[in-house]
Amino acid sequence: MNCKVDEDVAAEALRRIEELALCSDSLPSITRLFETPAMNRARETLQEWFLDAGLEISVDQVGNLIGRWPESSGGAGTLAIGSHFDTVPDAGKYDGVAGIVLGLAAVTQIRREGLTLPFNLEIVAFAEEEGTRFQSGYLGSTCYGGIFDAALLDRMDEQEITLRDVLTARGTDCDRWIKEQQPRKDLLAYLEAHIEQGPVLEHKAMHLGVVTGIAGQSRAIITFTGMAGHAGTTPMQMRRDALTGAAAFITEAETLATRTEGLVATVGTLSILPGATNVIPGHASLTLDLRHGKDEVRHKAIRHLKEFSEDLAHNRNLDLEWRGTHDSPAVRCDASIQTELCAIVRDLQGEAPELASGAGHDAVPLSAVAPVGMLFIRCKDGLSHHPGEYASPEDLRTGITALTEFLRRRAV
Amino acid sequence: MNCKVDEDVAAEALRRIEELALCSDSLPSITRLFETPAMNRARETLQEWFLDAGLEISVDQVGNLIGRWPESSGGAGTLAIGSHFDTVPDAGKYDGVAGIVLGLAAVTQIRREGLTLPFNLEIVAFAEEEGTRFQSGYLGSTCYGGIFDAALLDRMDEQEITLRDVLTARGTDCDRWIKEQQPRKDLLAYLEAHIEQGPVLEHKAMHLGVVTGIAGQSRAIITFTGMAGHAGTTPMQMRRDALTGAAAFITEAETLATRTEGLVATVGTLSILPGATNVIPGHASLTLDLRHGKDEVRHKAIRHLKEFSEDLAHNRNLDLEWRGTHDSPAVRCDASIQTELCAIVRDLQGEAPELASGAGHDAVPLSAVAPVGMLFIRCKDGLSHHPGEYASPEDLRTGITALTEFLRRRAV
Repeated sequence: MNCKVDEDVAAEALRRIEELALCSDSLPSITRLFETPAMNRARETLQEWFLDAGLEISVDQVGNLIGRWPESSGGAGTLAIGSHFDTVPDAGKYDGVAGIVLGLAAVTQIRREGLTLPFNLEIVAFAEEEGTRFQSGYLGSTCYGGIFDAALLDRMDEQEITLRDVLTARGTDCDRWIKEQQPRKDLLAYLEAHIEQGPVLEHKAMHLGVVTGIAGQSRAIITFTGMAGHAGTTPMQMRRDALTGAAAFITEAETLATRTEGLVATVGTLSILPGATNVIPGHASLTLDLRHGKDEVRHKAIRHLKEFSEDLAHNRNLDLEWRGTHDSPAVRCDASIQTELCAIVRDLQGEAPELASGAGHDAVPLSAVAPVGMLFIRCKDGLSHHPGEYASPEDLRTGITALTEFLRRRAV
Repeated sequence: MNCKVDEDVAAEALRRIEELALCSDSLPSITRLFETPAMNRARETLQEWFLDAGLEISVDQVGNLIGRWPESSGGAGTLAIGSHFDTVPDAGKYDGVAGIVLGLAAVTQIRREGLTLPFNLEIVAFAEEEGTRFQSGYLGSTCYGGIFDAALLDRMDEQEITLRDVLTARGTDCDRWIKEQQPRKDLLAYLEAHIEQGPVLEHKAMHLGVVTGIAGQSRAIITFTGMAGHAGTTPMQMRRDALTGAAAFITEAETLATRTEGLVATVGTLSILPGATNVIPGHASLTLDLRHGKDEVRHKAIRHLKEFSEDLAHNRNLDLEWRGTHDSPAVRCDASIQTELCAIVRDLQGEAPELASGAGHDAVPLSAVAPVGMLFIRCKDGLSHHPGEYASPEDLRTGITALTEFLRRRAV
């Protein structure tokens, strides 16, 4: 198979990742929150590159940058390739940005080869995915998909500026936009390359993986309340220790996830009161984060843990509060895109690891309006949202090759 | 048996507990830290009552108030009855104070009955037991016993004032005192009544209990270190979750203590890092507090938990740090005093529950220079070191009666 890309195209993509890392409001570390000076600089930078690639550019209501290569006859729907260019605070160089830059490299390669596509192609740089500034993610991709949730316009950031104010300041007529928005019907597919943010590909020693779907997620705040007491004078049998109850719950969540293929369960925070060496904890509050590629498996796990915690609270004479705080369904990647990506990846590296994404991506909201497909790129130590985030040049080049090949196979 | 006390004597004792509660530096809550205005007011108040009871009073180097009823011929050693009159911040009315006031009531009753004792009697109000200000307790009783640790003089409080400065300001010649101090040889016994600070007597529906000894105590800070990671993208099998390791340890400590008669184990603090809902904890640090009346049982338990945590850390690929921070041996109450207190308590309430004290008391250091005995008084909900601390008038009256009877039986 002819699946190479020109060396200079790949090298330029790698250089561009480094250049975008300099668009930051917290140099030398990387921070690009929604609608900040760093985001504007990054958008201007991307815009030049999009123009260099011969794309027709536009910026939409939330500041997404769209580079369009129209099909010559003007019909036949649109294939979108993209990712986001906002970051969490103190971020890495690759999360989001890699997907934009690699997509752009693939288009550049295809055009250089003189190929044309039987559909419109859009390279999209989403202005918001992480949800940092307004505590709600996917602002970019929901706007692009025509499915933006108008209720979010009243959200306030930490400075108590509303999203509406922010968008109005950038020239958006919010009322008109919301009134006129329609779910997009022209999208043939949305394709995204992203670093894995996990250790599976590194563990398998593979450049790329094909994403089967994006895990559904349940979050809950679980609070056990017993009775504080003197650590020396309260016999074990008379205790109502909230922490030992929480510990039993944590162990059960771990055991269940370990025994259930593909399930991950995490207790990431735990706070206890009163919190003194010689006082039995009367109060323990923890967060549970539970994810699985299949909603029925996740819901069954949640039911089991809820029942377990109720029994546990009963047996230990504790009060239990279970507060569900988040429930997002699993998203399946399109089967035919997945099959095709697997074939391409297998050609490139002999094997095509298929894996579910435990983290959310712009493909989640866009799955409501288009078939979605995702490629994962190996990253070091599974690290992301961290300055130490790293994807090797070889892995990124292989990513460009795979995207290029995906387009080549559609060329006319 | 004639074991009543006059109603006015008992009523006065109850009133005095209320009156001392007004000597506070944090009114309406109760706070009497060592060498503070509230302590001076409390000492002056006690001093009047000691004088009213016909005692010869003195104040020693650390501010203990001693009320002496000398044996008429001046010989035959000294029986001490007392407790402390300092408190923790935001304390209850009974912890410490009850033991002084009840002892004073017993002496008052004995003198009113025209009885005399064949030894010197001292009612002692210790100026420091809780260890709040200088993070070291028993300043009062070690001074009284002639076994004060001179190294503590250089201890600083939160305002960086040394204990030496504080004592010098109250007129103590520290160097001379330390040079001249000798372990007391004249103490026939030290007897203390104290609220239980636990729920056992309430559970047994008994006014009083007889203390068999004061538990030895081990404390440790135990830290598990693994690797933080993304809650969604790190498979269970590849995690190094410090919190699930800590949870397994907490469960084992609870199980061991539940299975070991008289052992209490408490994890009272637990902190995890980084502490975010969607991040696997890479670091978990907890405190262990372990107590038992027999040192060999406690030491065996500590060895077991240490081995367990080492195996656990090995199996879970965690790093373990175990830092012992405290190890105090168990103290046994004097067998013959215990037998006698049991007989008295049995006469008063039909049954004499014998229980180990899980909390420390002035009897701990004084056991080095005298046989010690302790009576526990029932308290509500096992609560102490708390504004809700409560002992009923009936329970307190029964305590006075028991102390009185203890003296009566020795009267000549």
